Amino acid sequence: MVTYRDATAADLPAIVLLLAEDQIGGRRDDPGPPLDSAYAAAFAAIDGDPNQRLIVAVSGGTVIGTMQLSFLPGLLNRGAWRGQIEAVRIAADQRGQGLGADMIGWAVEQCRARGCFMAQLTSNNDRGAAHRFYERLGWQKSHAGFKLYLEAY
Amino acid sequence: MVTYRDATAADLPAIVLLLAEDQIGGRRDDPGPPLDSAYAAAFAAIDGDPNQRLIVAVSGGTVIGTMQLSFLPGLLNRGAWRGQIEAVRIAADQRGQGLGADMIGWAVEQCRARGCFMAQLTSNNDRGAAHRFYERLGWQKSHAGFKLYLEAY
Repeated sequence: MVTYRDATAADLPAIVLLLAEDQIGGRRDDPGPPLDSAYAAAFAAIDGDPNQRLIVAVSGGTVIGTMQLSFLPGLLNRGAWRGQIEAVRIAADQRGQGLGADMIGWAVEQCRARGCFMAQLTSNNDRGAAHRFYERLGWQKSHAGFKLYLEAY
Repeated sequence: MVTYRDATAADLPAIVLLLAEDQIGGRRDDPGPPLDSAYAAAFAAIDGDPNQRLIVAVSGGTVIGTMQLSFLPGLLNRGAWRGQIEAVRIAADQRGQGLGADMIGWAVEQCRARGCFMAQLTSNNDRGAAHRFYERLGWQKSHAGFKLYLEAY
């Protein structure tokens, strides 16, 4: 039984561990201990912003997945809001059991509940399996995602 | 001489005109008059959020370009912020004169000033010229952008 809830500061070590384990996106992350105080500062910024939600998927009291939801106001499409999903991670030993689809489905429901006309996300071109996964769930791979690094990465 | 500034409510008709003129992204937008009150509500949401900036490029008192900047907190990369650029539009009669590169350069500087480690944007796969433009400016086309529409579009 998996439940979803907003993360608390006490979840940070488990979340950062999931981020750091990811070979593509987590190579500058370090789960500690000790945990870099920058993570607590970032969490405070997320937690204090009603348009940002850091989510954990929990099973048996253990964090087995995480993602961030951002609700973005904009003028396009007659002032419609967008829901953005970022930093989706699932524990290695929990994959292949449908948790990803369940998490994304839950995230999309949160976007609907906030009145978003669209949900969006980007996925690294090296994540071919993830791309097929999103397409199976009905997402359209209609855009290219560009990144410009402003510091060494 | 082009200057950039945060938009005011008085700029909304000019901005929405730029959005509506775009064949790919603006087909549900209507510049009026009258201007749909939903645009004013969206502007209020942007204007009231310190992490959202609606920008206009102005020349001779006329709005000739627009874009939205979103500053996003996150845990990834040791709690680094991202700058996101969305809804970049330039008036048809102002294209091909370097305004786009100037606008994006200005936007990137705003991201640096906010301490972002990365700037990001997505661009529709039908905008091939824009993709080449961003690559010329040094952006990496490293991701795929997925969209899921939650209402008829």
